[in-house]
Amino acid sequence: MSETERVKTGIKGLDELIEGGLPRGFSFLLLGGPGTGKTTFGVQYLYKGATEFEDGGMYVTFDEPPYSIAGNSERYGWNLVEQEKAGKIAFVDASPIKSAAARTATFVPPSLGQSFLGGAKFNIDNIVAAIKEVKQKVNAKRCVIDSITALTLQYKDDFEIRQQTLKLIKDLTEMGLTTIMLAENPEDRQDLTRFGAEAFLAQGVIVLHMYRVEESNVKALEVRKMRGAKHTDRLCPYRITAEGIEVYPEETVFRSV
Amino acid sequence: MSETERVKTGIKGLDELIEGGLPRGFSFLLLGGPGTGKTTFGVQYLYKGATEFEDGGMYVTFDEPPYSIAGNSERYGWNLVEQEKAGKIAFVDASPIKSAAARTATFVPPSLGQSFLGGAKFNIDNIVAAIKEVKQKVNAKRCVIDSITALTLQYKDDFEIRQQTLKLIKDLTEMGLTTIMLAENPEDRQDLTRFGAEAFLAQGVIVLHMYRVEESNVKALEVRKMRGAKHTDRLCPYRITAEGIEVYPEETVFRSV
Amino acid sequence: MSETERVKTGIKGLDELIEGGLPRGFSFLLLGGPGTGKTTFGVQYLYKGATEFEDGGMYVTFDEPPYSIAGNSERYGWNLVEQEKAGKIAFVDASPIKSAAARTATFVPPSLGQSFLGGAKFNIDNIVAAIKEVKQKVNAKRCVIDSITALTLQYKDDFEIRQQTLKLIKDLTEMGLTTIMLAENPEDRQDLTRFGAEAFLAQGVIVLHMYRVEESNVKALEVRKMRGAKHTDRLCPYRITAEGIEVYPEETVFRSV
Amino acid sequence: MSETERVKTGIKGLDELIEGGLPRGFSFLLLGGPGTGKTTFGVQYLYKGATEFEDGGMYVTFDEPPYSIAGNSERYGWNLVEQEKAGKIAFVDASPIKSAAARTATFVPPSLGQSFLGGAKFNIDNIVAAIKEVKQKVNAKRCVIDSITALTLQYKDDFEIRQQTLKLIKDLTEMGLTTIMLAENPEDRQDLTRFGAEAFLAQGVIVLHMYRVEESNVKALEVRKMRGAKHTDRLCPYRITAEGIEVYPEETVFRSV
Amino acid sequence: MSETERVKTGIKGLDELIEGGLPRGFSFLLLGGPGTGKTTFGVQYLYKGATEFEDGGMYVTFDEPPYSIAGNSERYGWNLVEQEKAGKIAFVDASPIKSAAARTATFVPPSLGQSFLGGAKFNIDNIVAAIKEVKQKVNAKRCVIDSITALTLQYKDDFEIRQQTLKLIKDLTEMGLTTIMLAENPEDRQDLTRFGAEAFLAQGVIVLHMYRVEESNVKALEVRKMRGAKHTDRLCPYRITAEGIEVYPEETVFRSV
Amino acid sequence: MSETERVKTGIKGLDELIEGGLPRGFSFLLLGGPGTGKTTFGVQYLYKGATEFEDGGMYVTFDEPPYSIAGNSERYGWNLVEQEKAGKIAFVDASPIKSAAARTATFVPPSLGQSFLGGAKFNIDNIVAAIKEVKQKVNAKRCVIDSITALTLQYKDDFEIRQQTLKLIKDLTEMGLTTIMLAENPEDRQDLTRFGAEAFLAQGVIVLHMYRVEESNVKALEVRKMRGAKHTDRLCPYRITAEGIEVYPEETVFRSV
Repeated sequence: MSETERVKTGIKGLDELIEGGLPRGFSFLLLGGPGTGKTTFGVQYLYKGATEFEDGGMYVTFDEPPYSIAGNSERYGWNLVEQEKAGKIAFVDASPIKSAAARTATFVPPSLGQSFLGGAKFNIDNIVAAIKEVKQKVNAKRCVIDSITALTLQYKDDFEIRQQTLKLIKDLTEMGLTTIMLAENPEDRQDLTRFGAEAFLAQGVIVLHMYRVEESNVKALEVRKMRGAKHTDRLCPYRITAEGIEVYPEETVFRSV
Repeated sequence: MSETERVKTGIKGLDELIEGGLPRGFSFLLLGGPGTGKTTFGVQYLYKGATEFEDGGMYVTFDEPPYSIAGNSERYGWNLVEQEKAGKIAFVDASPIKSAAARTATFVPPSLGQSFLGGAKFNIDNIVAAIKEVKQKVNAKRCVIDSITALTLQYKDDFEIRQQTLKLIKDLTEMGLTTIMLAENPEDRQDLTRFGAEAFLAQGVIVLHMYRVEESNVKALEVRKMRGAKHTDRLCPYRITAEGIEVYPEETVFRSV
Repeated sequence: MSETERVKTGIKGLDELIEGGLPRGFSFLLLGGPGTGKTTFGVQYLYKGATEFEDGGMYVTFDEPPYSIAGNSERYGWNLVEQEKAGKIAFVDASPIKSAAARTATFVPPSLGQSFLGGAKFNIDNIVAAIKEVKQKVNAKRCVIDSITALTLQYKDDFEIRQQTLKLIKDLTEMGLTTIMLAENPEDRQDLTRFGAEAFLAQGVIVLHMYRVEESNVKALEVRKMRGAKHTDRLCPYRITAEGIEVYPEETVFRSV
Repeated sequence: MSETERVKTGIKGLDELIEGGLPRGFSFLLLGGPGTGKTTFGVQYLYKGATEFEDGGMYVTFDEPPYSIAGNSERYGWNLVEQEKAGKIAFVDASPIKSAAARTATFVPPSLGQSFLGGAKFNIDNIVAAIKEVKQKVNAKRCVIDSITALTLQYKDDFEIRQQTLKLIKDLTEMGLTTIMLAENPEDRQDLTRFGAEAFLAQGVIVLHMYRVEESNVKALEVRKMRGAKHTDRLCPYRITAEGIEVYPEETVFRSV
Repeated sequence: MSETERVKTGIKGLDELIEGGLPRGFSFLLLGGPGTGKTTFGVQYLYKGATEFEDGGMYVTFDEPPYSIAGNSERYGWNLVEQEKAGKIAFVDASPIKSAAARTATFVPPSLGQSFLGGAKFNIDNIVAAIKEVKQKVNAKRCVIDSITALTLQYKDDFEIRQQTLKLIKDLTEMGLTTIMLAENPEDRQDLTRFGAEAFLAQGVIVLHMYRVEESNVKALEVRKMRGAKHTDRLCPYRITAEGIEVYPEETVFRSV
Repeated sequence: MSETERVKTGIKGLDELIEGGLPRGFSFLLLGGPGTGKTTFGVQYLYKGATEFEDGGMYVTFDEPPYSIAGNSERYGWNLVEQEKAGKIAFVDASPIKSAAARTATFVPPSLGQSFLGGAKFNIDNIVAAIKEVKQKVNAKRCVIDSITALTLQYKDDFEIRQQTLKLIKDLTEMGLTTIMLAENPEDRQDLTRFGAEAFLAQGVIVLHMYRVEESNVKALEVRKMRGAKHTDRLCPYRITAEGIEVYPEETVFRSV
């Protein structure tokens, strides 16, 4: 237990901010508003894991269907279909959207998704069961939950949200997965970031900010919390480039060099 | 799936901000307060589609009746009645307002609308069924929902709003439509923009802002999110001119050249 | 349908802001806090309509009784009693206040009002029936609803407010009336103006603002939205003078010439 | 009905702001936070009415008992007990507080108060009945309600508050009383004045403000609304002096001469 | 009733701000956030009353147990145990906390407290009965309620809070007590001070503010309201010294001399 | 009772701010957002207590499992496993997360935790019973509750939260423990710190702030309240160093020396 093993995120510039990577075996929260690149972050984490660090990965999606995630990833040169065929990345498809295109695509999502929309509510136990099953196939060590918001929205009660989130984290931890849970942050613009139970329960919290500086939107990443890791407390600018997300630890956010 | 096909919006100055147009086959959110020109945006998208890009289009309206939309569009030189006769644009009329004028107009709305006000609530399945039916007639490739707010207001629960929005997006996607969903943003002035589930679920989000600069209202368009497209993150001024909405990517909002 | 006919408001300086007047046959929202002159605006619209533009008019009042409205209008030289006798203006009196003075006044309000207070809730259908009946007598083309707030307050649910507002607008439209709906805006001072469903559903929205500039209250009119009309987006100062409301499109609000 | 009769308030400096006084026969709202002098304003209005303008008056109190109001008024030289004996001012005591002192005082409150605390809720009809009865004895022309807040607090529903307030105003109007309704404004400090139904329903609204200017509290009176009267729209400083409230229309609030 | 008798607070510097002291026989509100010294203020008021002004006193506590209050008071040199033995100060102990230390201490709280925690809710009648009983023993003229917040928190409804507060004030008044009711003010920092029913019902309101000036917390006392007493409307700095609370009427808060 | 005994916190720089340490035998609140170091503070308090001040300690955890807390503490050189074996520190494990690693670790948490997740709600009585039992084994004098938020979240009602918090504090006090209760503060960034019942009921309140100064997050500790102790009212910077939390009473927060 002494030396914590690190999981390289594959996000250029990020690992050096957190002592080399995410502490292996825990769950982390990635908070951001629409357009901040949460999904890109999640896919990059898995794709780099599979292609550069020999880690299998799973993408659990509640909203956007796998074929769409895969399609949008192509612009960064990440071929998820290829990785899936190679048995290195798998999707748990809990998204209710199945386009005609998707149905004829070579990219076949696991059969789980279809059943979710029928029932009124997701069930953490079912989700976990599906994750366990799919995990075997790709020997996954990394996991992305897109999004924890979609999952907890069904609970009305702060107490129940806390209990269910703890339960999910517990199960992911027992499976030995290093998980990034994407979370929607609807009001970041005003810098009114409100942290819910997830932020307190997760082992670490990374926030993707978007500021309007005059007429531009400037993006900045903040490592808000990282248990068991010395981490910077500076805001670091990031951009979504043709190669994916890049963080610039050396640059400043508000007066760019 | 490699090269995403683009749908030209017909909004002058907008397409160049989003790599040539909206990614075909997805749903997008257009957010704005009263008076920002959401309806004009929607009509322009369909009219230009029909007259310049050979795309049939459908306008699904829950509030303002088709004859009124058509009447107000004339000021821009857009003859919707003509397009309807030519079988290029169709309305799904879920608006409860039928004026005497409307009843005698050559512009005959589909019979769907009348029945909605009778029942207590809209039904997504009925709406989708009507869209499917009308879509055949005009071979529609573009769709405008005016407004998603009217549709989701009947649901009390964030979870249900999310589920129903996902269901609608799923069905529109399966029909192959490229859809703009108009959404009411009642508090933009204070810049406390709240993005709900719709913003997270849509493939892209365009926001129409209105700022009071001294004694004038200045309008600015923001591409907040556009999955699968590199897009500007600048605020771009726009105006509602005699030819419709025009965006000025080269100008600045707060210190106009 | 090509050239929209315009209804002159009779508010000095306003018509030129909206291409000559309100588009005939639609419903408009007039939003303002206490003391901004909403009632004066409404009476002036009807009185000028009757005396200068040959339009009969109806004033539907839910709070202030007709005799009081008539009494307060005298200071502007508007004799409503005279107009009522001449069959040019009529009241639909849904106000619960009947003073002794009122009962002996020559000004006899329609018999409708009394019954409203008895029942727990107003009924849109009854209101519309009364409007229809009274409309015949004065051949009304203009209508003022004072206030839409009083009418919608009984509904708890945003969805129902929307439905009922749509129903009212629909019925007023079918009767061919050009209607101004007064609405209470309880928080204008802080500029926290909240536009509800009414603002999105109305064909146009005019806001009466009141700002404290040092120790004075400065009034300013804003045409927030006007479908089918090119309109200014400047804040225009207005005053309540001995001749009623006057708007000054040439002046500035915050640095008066 | 032509020339509205004016009721002199007896507040030095105020009448000249509102064309000579309050329009006779209507109800007005006086809004202020704790410590702004609402009760002093109300007592002064009645006392000056009785001693200088030959108007009988009634003070309806829901919170502070008559003996306490009378005791605190002595510091201004206003002897209410004397006025009560002379049959010029009467109290309707709906306050639940009866001190030993009060019971032995020469100042005997009407018997009404006691019964209120017993029942769970005030009843507008009972209040009105008591007002009617007491009104006969002193031939009251002026009335103070202290406070409308205490009266409407029992209603949970905005619609019911509106209906009950209208009913009260209607009954006071029918009795020919010129009434000042005191209202608690809990958040004035931040200038977040929120106007409730009372402000929209009353014939006039006067607001007592309190500003912190550096380390002092500065008081300012605003005539926010006054139907049927031309009124100033300036903030006027006021002070609570040894002679009661005095308004200084010639002075400025923030840079005192 | 003519000359109001004054109760010296024993707070250095305060009495001169309010014409010599609190008007005898009434109830006052002391509002403050955590750490502003409310309890110290209350104890000082009683201790000085007992030792310097010959007034017996009672401390009614709902949260902190008497032994703890007594222990913390020692740092100011106030020996409450001594005063209790001398029959000059008594506690009504409604606190649920009884430490082992407390049970063996010479300081024996009245037997009332124990029973409260058992029942689900406090009962104003029981509290008042206990106050009456204990009052006899020490011939109390002063009373501190710590806190009115603890007492009213059990009521969900603004109307009921108002009624119960009135009832308590009424009973305290009938007993002839001059009472300070401590109240928790959780958001003073933002200066969004909300004054509830208690502030309107009490005879006077004193607010303890805490401002962050750069990196220090500056304390300031404000006499917000004091019926029947001319009082300063300046913010006065205060400090918690080794002798208790001291107010500095001659100093300024933000630019200390 | 005269001289209050002090408990040294072991947080470098803190004790001198509060007259040498926390008053022994009471409960204190430590408020902070995610990433402010609350858990580190709690562990340091116990570890230093056990290794430097001969005080046994207990860590009651509702969220993060003991093995994870222990693992993260190693980076500061604090070997909790060693201390547990030596019988100086014990965990009450009410966390629902048990990783495979944890199960095989030498670090065996008490059997209490497992049962909690099964039941719907925590029970203060059960928690207290467990604390009592474990307290015997290590002769604990110090206690950390991580977190009071997790415990009170199950209560919907402010009154019940207050009662339950009082009950817990009462029981901890009776056991003679000096307790630090960690509390989550979800909105610190905007300085909208809301102090709930816990802050008013605790004997002292320490707040961990995090400010964004340009692009860095600056941390500052505030002793907001400390009954029975003279304490600084300055904001003091602190950092999380390789040796744990260090407070710098001599430095300034916003213009670091």
